[in-house]
Amino acid sequence: MRPVAVIGAGKTPFGIFADRDLRSLAVEAGEKCLRNCHVAPGQIESFYLGNFAGPSFTGQNHLAPYISTALGIMDVPSTRVEAACASSGSAFFHAWAEVAAGIYDIVMVVGVEKMTSRNTAQVNEILAEAGDCSGEMRAGNTFASLFAMIARRHMFEFGTKKEHLSAVAVKNHANGALNPDAQMRKVITLEQAMKGKPIADPLNLYDCSLISDGAAAVILAPLERAHEFTDKPVRVLGIAQASDYVALDQKDDITTFPAVRRAGEKAYQMAGVTPRDIQFAELHDCFTIAEIIATEDLGFTGRGEGGPYAFEGHTARSGERPVNTSGGLKAKGHPVGATGVAQICDLVLQIRCEAGDRQIPRHSLGLAENLGGSGATCVVSILGAA
Amino acid sequence: MRPVAVIGAGKTPFGIFADRDLRSLAVEAGEKCLRNCHVAPGQIESFYLGNFAGPSFTGQNHLAPYISTALGIMDVPSTRVEAACASSGSAFFHAWAEVAAGIYDIVMVVGVEKMTSRNTAQVNEILAEAGDCSGEMRAGNTFASLFAMIARRHMFEFGTKKEHLSAVAVKNHANGALNPDAQMRKVITLEQAMKGKPIADPLNLYDCSLISDGAAAVILAPLERAHEFTDKPVRVLGIAQASDYVALDQKDDITTFPAVRRAGEKAYQMAGVTPRDIQFAELHDCFTIAEIIATEDLGFTGRGEGGPYAFEGHTARSGERPVNTSGGLKAKGHPVGATGVAQICDLVLQIRCEAGDRQIPRHSLGLAENLGGSGATCVVSILGAA
Repeated sequence: MRPVAVIGAGKTPFGIFADRDLRSLAVEAGEKCLRNCHVAPGQIESFYLGNFAGPSFTGQNHLAPYISTALGIMDVPSTRVEAACASSGSAFFHAWAEVAAGIYDIVMVVGVEKMTSRNTAQVNEILAEAGDCSGEMRAGNTFASLFAMIARRHMFEFGTKKEHLSAVAVKNHANGALNPDAQMRKVITLEQAMKGKPIADPLNLYDCSLISDGAAAVILAPLERAHEFTDKPVRVLGIAQASDYVALDQKDDITTFPAVRRAGEKAYQMAGVTPRDIQFAELHDCFTIAEIIATEDLGFTGRGEGGPYAFEGHTARSGERPVNTSGGLKAKGHPVGATGVAQICDLVLQIRCEAGDRQIPRHSLGLAENLGGSGATCVVSILGAA
Repeated sequence: MRPVAVIGAGKTPFGIFADRDLRSLAVEAGEKCLRNCHVAPGQIESFYLGNFAGPSFTGQNHLAPYISTALGIMDVPSTRVEAACASSGSAFFHAWAEVAAGIYDIVMVVGVEKMTSRNTAQVNEILAEAGDCSGEMRAGNTFASLFAMIARRHMFEFGTKKEHLSAVAVKNHANGALNPDAQMRKVITLEQAMKGKPIADPLNLYDCSLISDGAAAVILAPLERAHEFTDKPVRVLGIAQASDYVALDQKDDITTFPAVRRAGEKAYQMAGVTPRDIQFAELHDCFTIAEIIATEDLGFTGRGEGGPYAFEGHTARSGERPVNTSGGLKAKGHPVGATGVAQICDLVLQIRCEAGDRQIPRHSLGLAENLGGSGATCVVSILGAA
């Protein structure tokens, strides 16, 4: 397999855009990305769309050619991948595989979701379809209640505290405040975070990611051709996708995600690095507890130590391993199908030293972790300066 | 790229199964397929699910790990592909690419759809989401009305007659009557077919494919390893996926599908064969006119000559190039997300000489064409005896 580089990246802001439809968001991100690496639509040899629930949110299905033709990309394979909140992470994985294997040279991946045309109850119902609807969801769960159980068990097993969760929210809000494309640009205090409106105890409003509209796009090429398109290629050093049970009750232990561990191990092995080498990361903080567990499952800290690790500031911009300098799903926003590719875009910005006010000093090796559902799909990507 | 073989195939019957859910259908097909080639779930290195609208039909999303874990396939990449009625054809294409490129050896593809839990009006609404919902569908179209316009224009341009369309229905019903797994096992006369209940003039009930439940599965491996698993490997000689506009009104000419022509050309080139070499085919007869146009776009007959070609019996089991010996979408059934892989299974049965009463004598080189929407996605696969 040959080395692969991200040659271009482009994103829309994330937020609530009442006047924008799904296609216009995807096209905006796609066109920014094409311009970013001076690639013409006719040069794209294969197109991937990551989208979770466009049909349910917007009434439009068959979304890959619907969007690729609007970008002027004709004739070539145009494929939608769905893997819950890991939809575009998975699309990115498959696009990488095509380029690495030499099937195609120039492959584009767009992730998009348009959620805010539905009200919050409808959104929760559509999101719940990523859980096991014949079991856990039929029993009345939402993803917030599933992750509340996970948090409660993590507290019981390891002594994780509410303030540990809240510290993640405070950090991600602080980072989001510096990101002009973030949906929520509001600094909050630990006291505010602790006292948020209850959602599913112990999770409150500040522990939950946002409901968002947005899109993100990247273009991949063989590393040896990358300089035809950009002065700042970013290399994909390691990447893996893994799977596990959809239903939480099928898992032996709900305080760890085997798919995250598995994808992480494979990605580290491919990249030839260890967790210690990772300088910064975008982790899937759909809920604050998910970021804490991800820091454990990916080996940034020991099992059960993710709460204090966050609380003590190790994942802050000034810490030893900054996590979610973009603001994460918590503050940047979480248009479900866009999130995986948006994480890649955020790694690219840091690695290229283009992250503006939130730029960190050690930024040459970053990791993205994109989680689907309560852990049934995970994609881990490790990117570095080429 | 290395040669790839289908080493195993398995299908459920297609029909209306009130007591079966989506997962149980997919698992039945998957288990039959695993047994067919003596592969254990733990040997599968990558899993693909082709599914069009599971969330809308059944309320369950995130379907790939939901099904792969139920088959005992753990940890590995588990990916859902959606491309309207070409969902599992596209999944098959991507699985082939992974094996051909040497990324994995043993890759499984399952296609499934559970449609009959919704009433006909709901089904039509869900299917319509594969068209352009901001334009043609908002104007009141269904897929039947879109294909009626296509048929009407084909009649105007080329003199195609209603009896040409009906001849396709008569043939596919005759074939389906010999297929124990077909949903509709009823021989009809040309007179009956001509007098069907009107749906969207000139299409009547007998011109339209069925609403079905069902699943199909195949496993792919490098040709050089195929004999570890089966005495009857079937080689993938050529395959391609292509795309085009979703909306019919964006096309210059609605009597031909550029994505079919494009995918066909690429698949023929890869296989090193011409249309003349193809001995039999499974074509996407979502409507009778679609089969007629496919015989033209794939070069079995000349432009505009597909109607007489069918009417004169050239595509009958006893003709020069049998089409849809399975009964096609018309009589076998059309569980949307299962159709692409089911076509591959039907080619495999003929090539292995296991097609029972519908076995044809010249069966060593077959083609499958899987169409999404009104032509925005097409996958063409050419399979032959290994």
